[in-house]
Amino acid sequence: MRRSKAFIPTSKEAPSDAILASHQFLVRGGFINQQGAGLYNYLPLGKIVLEKIKNIVKEELDKAGCIEVQLPFVTPISLWDKSGRADTMGKEMLRVQDRHDKDFVLSPTNEEAMVELVKNRVKSYKNLPINLYQINTKFRDEARPRYGLLRAREFLMKDGYSFHASLEDMQREFELMEATYKKIFTRLGLDFRVVDADSGAIGGSGSKEFHVLANSGEDTIIVCNVCDYGANIETIFEDESKIEAYNEKSYEQLQSQTLDVKCKCGGDFSFKKGIEVGHIFELGDKYSASLDAKFSDENGKPQAFLMATFGIGVSRLIASVIEQNHDDNGCIWTKETTPYLINIMVSNIKDSEQSDLGEKLYTQLRAKNVEVILDDTKERFGFKMKDAELIGFAYTIIIGKELVNGEVQIYDRKTTEKVSVNVDDVMSKIMDLI
Amino acid sequence: MRRSKAFIPTSKEAPSDAILASHQFLVRGGFINQQGAGLYNYLPLGKIVLEKIKNIVKEELDKAGCIEVQLPFVTPISLWDKSGRADTMGKEMLRVQDRHDKDFVLSPTNEEAMVELVKNRVKSYKNLPINLYQINTKFRDEARPRYGLLRAREFLMKDGYSFHASLEDMQREFELMEATYKKIFTRLGLDFRVVDADSGAIGGSGSKEFHVLANSGEDTIIVCNVCDYGANIETIFEDESKIEAYNEKSYEQLQSQTLDVKCKCGGDFSFKKGIEVGHIFELGDKYSASLDAKFSDENGKPQAFLMATFGIGVSRLIASVIEQNHDDNGCIWTKETTPYLINIMVSNIKDSEQSDLGEKLYTQLRAKNVEVILDDTKERFGFKMKDAELIGFAYTIIIGKELVNGEVQIYDRKTTEKVSVNVDDVMSKIMDLI
Repeated sequence: MRRSKAFIPTSKEAPSDAILASHQFLVRGGFINQQGAGLYNYLPLGKIVLEKIKNIVKEELDKAGCIEVQLPFVTPISLWDKSGRADTMGKEMLRVQDRHDKDFVLSPTNEEAMVELVKNRVKSYKNLPINLYQINTKFRDEARPRYGLLRAREFLMKDGYSFHASLEDMQREFELMEATYKKIFTRLGLDFRVVDADSGAIGGSGSKEFHVLANSGEDTIIVCNVCDYGANIETIFEDESKIEAYNEKSYEQLQSQTLDVKCKCGGDFSFKKGIEVGHIFELGDKYSASLDAKFSDENGKPQAFLMATFGIGVSRLIASVIEQNHDDNGCIWTKETTPYLINIMVSNIKDSEQSDLGEKLYTQLRAKNVEVILDDTKERFGFKMKDAELIGFAYTIIIGKELVNGEVQIYDRKTTEKVSVNVDDVMSKIMDLI
Repeated sequence: MRRSKAFIPTSKEAPSDAILASHQFLVRGGFINQQGAGLYNYLPLGKIVLEKIKNIVKEELDKAGCIEVQLPFVTPISLWDKSGRADTMGKEMLRVQDRHDKDFVLSPTNEEAMVELVKNRVKSYKNLPINLYQINTKFRDEARPRYGLLRAREFLMKDGYSFHASLEDMQREFELMEATYKKIFTRLGLDFRVVDADSGAIGGSGSKEFHVLANSGEDTIIVCNVCDYGANIETIFEDESKIEAYNEKSYEQLQSQTLDVKCKCGGDFSFKKGIEVGHIFELGDKYSASLDAKFSDENGKPQAFLMATFGIGVSRLIASVIEQNHDDNGCIWTKETTPYLINIMVSNIKDSEQSDLGEKLYTQLRAKNVEVILDDTKERFGFKMKDAELIGFAYTIIIGKELVNGEVQIYDRKTTEKVSVNVDDVMSKIMDLI
């Protein structure tokens, strides 16, 4: 992509309500902008990052044998009546009436719809297990949408639902999905923890959350200093107000707190702040029983499906990457999430030697299928550099004054180091880096 | 994919309201099923076909310099108030109130939102032209949703919007998009016509439709027997009831009709039935003026953007492929749309020679990145064959009794011909075909 043909509306100003770094930098960097409260446009760079994350999620799920489907966003209320959730979901579930005054719901999640989809189509234990997922729009009518993509009303979620003939098999899939989610978040370059999320159950549980560690995280988690066990503090206190008190403390405040509880392994716990980006949950027959969804077991007897459910906050991951990876100047994308891996910056576009080299490297990198953007705009060097830092491309090749000595610089956004490289070595250096 | 692990719930029964072949076969073939009136689940095969079509649309648009974005599905009514369409869109535009009683709309199209996105972000003629698109969910609250994916309420649409500094440039982009759309529909393997859609303007117009020819099409179009000119009959009659009368006639009835009008080139027109799958439209400043969206021209004077808009009915294309390509036994997918290019059918899974060959070919084809499904189920040969015809995979390798003579058969779903091939030649034959 040529920057001169791109649409990357960067800006010096952040929205007045943007208190989080990800909210500020994603808007300022031209990734997203708000269309209405909790409703976001993905501008071209935001769309690229979103698709990259979606693809990684899809690739790993497909490798693990999950199968992709797509359900409607608008779902009939009748489904929610059957499960009883029409009455229990509260105001976050937004209702809508069609022209014939029939009630529908904007999908906040899709357990009921997925059970209906499988019901009468998967008939025998021979066709189990099956794990169906979608990566699709969801809507939750938050009372106070805020924090940019972290608490939007319309968002993109991966929701998966598995169906099993036995509890054992459900647990096997639960473990497979835990391993798969770890692969996904590791590929995304995130520092994360898997934590217990079931109340009262320290050590092994049918509900686990995946938290990206970030000081700005809304959740408070404890992690063991010896083993890899962790838990949401919701699991260790029964008193809601106590949990709230911890969640309101900043990361810094929490560091002076101690906890009486010891880990099973004997280790001590320390406090971390996390952003919940994944949740896996053993459901059992909760939805299949209420929706009367059954299969024939080995003896030909009808049994309710045993289910587990697996969620990933896909659009929330965009913001999570930045909450964990930024500095005062802007975004620091990981290699797998950067909108372009290489930014070629021609400092002075009127200098034909500089612009020729820019064009040459651009052509060579494209020929090698490297994701590259060529900054061929007329802006000044200082502006271009600030812009590259704000957007956060992984690497920038700076073609500047040193070119008279046959040198360019490679700027690493993560380390913020600039290394001078002979023009003849640029391509090999870049191919080594990526 | 192994059929034994797949989720392809084929069925002998079509929905009682399914009168069109695409509706019947897409449901029977396990591609889609209805969740509510005009609301469809995409089952695994339907999702694969949908993604294939999306990818082709995206690839060709990106090649033509269009840039992908993504707008929210739920949009504030305030946008529609500004353009005046809050009052004119009628009941097809579904409104929804959030928990604070604020009004929103489920996007039926996105002109206003896209103008707001560009407004104040594209400031100068130097940053024009720009063509932004998305492939995203839309909702139109049809009074009578029917015909499966052809007239669903929730559907997937590609909507693109271009912004220009001059009428000339807008027309250039209009022509580029006409050429791009032709590439897309050609790649999809469709027989289609580009027709004038502007009332009263025979020959050249700022509104063109793309119709997939199918006897079941809802629209009636005329095509010249000499040049490639065509028009929607809506353009030649002013009288609504006359248009309606033509549209109600079947393809067969229309063949006996004659038309007084001659084409500019002197040719005669004949009638065809078409399914509208694309529409390109020169908008001018209609939306930019009412939303006060301006850029600075070469003299620094503010001017309203000139716009054109470009739509493709992406989910509707799935049904269009089948309306045009089917027989009494089921779907006949084109090479670019078939859920899997090759179906390897092991007639008798208990015959180890047959199943070994199936596994071997499956491994070899996958190694060559050929999209292949292995029918490794225990069903009888007759059932498997009917199923393959219903689903409509482009080619099926039938591994059956002839294997004792060292032969298998390659079944071409389009020609319905079976050709016997020596086992040693199967791979090369297949690679030639695809």
